Amino acid sequence: MGEFELIRHYFAAAPCAQAVEGVALGIGDDCALLDLPAGEQLAISTDTLVAGVHFPDPCDAFLLGQRALAVAASDLAAMGATPLGFTLALCLPQATNDWLQGFARGLNQMAEQCGLALIGGDTTRGPLSLTVTVFGRLPRGQALLRSGAKVGDLLCVGGSLGDAAAALPLVLGQQQAAPEVAAALLAQYWSPRPQLALGQALRGKASAALDISDGLLADCGHIAAASGVALQIELARVPLSPAILALLSLPAAQHCALSGGDDYRLAFTLPAQHLSGLQADGWALQVIGRVVAGQGVQLLDEQGRVITPPSVWRNPWHFLAFGFGSGTLPKAPGTWGSLLALAFVPLWQLLPAWGYGLVLIVTTAFGCWLCGKVARDLGVHDHGGIVWDELVGVWITLWLVPAGWQWLLLGFVLFRLFDIVKPWPIRWIDRHVHGGVGIMLDDVLAGVFAWLSLQLIILGLS
Amino acid sequence: MGEFELIRHYFAAAPCAQAVEGVALGIGDDCALLDLPAGEQLAISTDTLVAGVHFPDPCDAFLLGQRALAVAASDLAAMGATPLGFTLALCLPQATNDWLQGFARGLNQMAEQCGLALIGGDTTRGPLSLTVTVFGRLPRGQALLRSGAKVGDLLCVGGSLGDAAAALPLVLGQQQAAPEVAAALLAQYWSPRPQLALGQALRGKASAALDISDGLLADCGHIAAASGVALQIELARVPLSPAILALLSLPAAQHCALSGGDDYRLAFTLPAQHLSGLQADGWALQVIGRVVAGQGVQLLDEQGRVITPPSVWRNPWHFLAFGFGSGTLPKAPGTWGSLLALAFVPLWQLLPAWGYGLVLIVTTAFGCWLCGKVARDLGVHDHGGIVWDELVGVWITLWLVPAGWQWLLLGFVLFRLFDIVKPWPIRWIDRHVHGGVGIMLDDVLAGVFAWLSLQLIILGLS
Repeated sequence: MGEFELIRHYFAAAPCAQAVEGVALGIGDDCALLDLPAGEQLAISTDTLVAGVHFPDPCDAFLLGQRALAVAASDLAAMGATPLGFTLALCLPQATNDWLQGFARGLNQMAEQCGLALIGGDTTRGPLSLTVTVFGRLPRGQALLRSGAKVGDLLCVGGSLGDAAAALPLVLGQQQAAPEVAAALLAQYWSPRPQLALGQALRGKASAALDISDGLLADCGHIAAASGVALQIELARVPLSPAILALLSLPAAQHCALSGGDDYRLAFTLPAQHLSGLQADGWALQVIGRVVAGQGVQLLDEQGRVITPPSVWRNPWHFLAFGFGSGTLPKAPGTWGSLLALAFVPLWQLLPAWGYGLVLIVTTAFGCWLCGKVARDLGVHDHGGIVWDELVGVWITLWLVPAGWQWLLLGFVLFRLFDIVKPWPIRWIDRHVHGGVGIMLDDVLAGVFAWLSLQLIILGLS
Repeated sequence: MGEFELIRHYFAAAPCAQAVEGVALGIGDDCALLDLPAGEQLAISTDTLVAGVHFPDPCDAFLLGQRALAVAASDLAAMGATPLGFTLALCLPQATNDWLQGFARGLNQMAEQCGLALIGGDTTRGPLSLTVTVFGRLPRGQALLRSGAKVGDLLCVGGSLGDAAAALPLVLGQQQAAPEVAAALLAQYWSPRPQLALGQALRGKASAALDISDGLLADCGHIAAASGVALQIELARVPLSPAILALLSLPAAQHCALSGGDDYRLAFTLPAQHLSGLQADGWALQVIGRVVAGQGVQLLDEQGRVITPPSVWRNPWHFLAFGFGSGTLPKAPGTWGSLLALAFVPLWQLLPAWGYGLVLIVTTAFGCWLCGKVARDLGVHDHGGIVWDELVGVWITLWLVPAGWQWLLLGFVLFRLFDIVKPWPIRWIDRHVHGGVGIMLDDVLAGVFAWLSLQLIILGLS
């Protein structure tokens, strides 16, 4: 029996690998077997952590054991699933006793806290990395998806945000902090508490949910995209811990909370009628905004005005993506962007038809890069203020169309119509294609539809 | 959206990631959701492949995609499970389009062949490795375990063995072969066909089963240990392909088949009454031996005699572990080893009590190392011919016992009794503790039980 075979037996003997209800067969055979009560579904999620990428190397094995399982279990919380078990694929350069014992202690502690049993896995020699696959159960059809948010719902989070991101310089040894501040922040980084009980309490109540791993703005962008709505976040309501405010200035703490990631708190949308019941049950949830019609995520100040990212006035790419600033207007930035686009059309119409066509190709390709870059910079998938896509859509609409303000007006109306109604496949693309291409493609298609309509009208009139 | 986010969307669009029955929710939310018909169980297995450890680096991405999934799916075959889906955790140093396309093609092809849908995963930057977790379903209680083999059952395999091991020097470029021979062997290495249909056909028939990944002898040792029986393999019946016999001599081919591994054929024990039915249904299974009382795995020659590993007469450690050769005797090697042990007792009795005690400590500790080493060398967990453990058990029994042949005889009888009856916890240890310690511990405990009985008898007589 080799060293790694021994490790397998070591894990098989761990407290978290012992028999529990629902696990018909644990470690030791070719497969583990799970029982699922009738009428329930199995929820499954896989997360990989790589040394030097997702955690510093070297690091404390006990903390790593805790963190690896917590990160994976948080996905069960985000679905509202009841935890069942997990498998662990552990890749180790060498196996020292100290390391394994520390790791197993951390893993056991988090497993017990989460109610997860170790049911299988694989241990191999190689560069340090861990893949945890978690299993939970759910009454059929009650999973909390990302796609159910409805206009009018409240946007809530399960606790203060930004601590883990604020802890990162401490984790990496790049910053010092007072001991009690450091302890509070490091605990959020190394042993986040998956909000499993809250997730289960939200079943049948929350309309959409996820766990915040990429940052509040980016993850709210996922809900907005999957649900086909816009989310408004009131910046002043985003909860911050005393520890993060002791370490950082308010703007720096807010930046961590909005774009930091690694929080593993739930973010969810909630029909307002469920709020008081959940609060009466003692859930410490925070309402931070609401679901409105539109797309993307908007940050609001205390007067309810959309906060423009300051970078729009500083970074030329951001300025361009925001339609020369038109995307910063508080109401209907897409409409203002489309109006601005009209101003360029007479200019393009000075070009020959193939020259105008070339402009379309170049601005579309450039837009895929630009919108992707700015969305990444801002940490939001489809920031409502990014209107370059609307500009290009209008320009497509008006290609090969006679000059004259009547045509401009007609094209503008048709394009807005297709962009708002989003006939198939535009709606599908809007939800399923991501990145810069995703931001551009739905408006490009709306432009093509509007162009076809205009050309038919021209054909009919001639 | 970063490069790795793009890859996730790339996999989400793969043919194998599209909706199938049983998968209520695939890639794209926090978890995937599986439906399981009432009365069924979910089978789960995880396998990790690391570049440079489990496959050569660099290697063809298409072949790697096939192999990674086939290796994992084979565990479902070994349980008799009906394939449902899989998750893929892919760790990549960098993402090139060519590599990803080739890998996804291989993965898709094997997924289609196995009937497995990609339901989730994670893609991260790091040293190349893959963790595949597969899911299957089974009527409750019908899983093919390793622990059900009964004395009298036939031992069968699902096809020829050794090809993948014979292919390894070709994979590594260390050997050449005729093109059609190389093609046949390399196909077994790179795209083994998980015997999923055979596994399902064996439900309710085979008493124990697994897939051969570590080599026939080692894996049969797993069935023997888990079932508390011995397996006899008739060497001449182990099936070999024309390709392996074209490349290697018969003894070299047999070595690949017995100890090579990576076959991913099923090995299973079958009550004899099911054989003709399975053969009539067209299953190309091969009977290679049978289940007998005892422990470990025995190789038999064509006259049904136990084949002694030639190394016993060449390697001094093997000679010692085989009880100075007594373990090579065809019938009851444990009994002969115990008898030989008696010859040493008068010698130990010349020592003071503490000196005899010291002999026990040293021979026990040495035995843990020796039995582990020789079991590894032979590729069999608990080779029936390893009798060093019986020697030490007899010596323990006779510590602090008066000299005289009557006491020797009584001690021998008591020890054999406890070693054969295996009262709790000896039986449990025999099945659950592995490696050299596992081989030693059950005999050490049988010795302690026999010693206690002897001491009580002495106390009663005095």
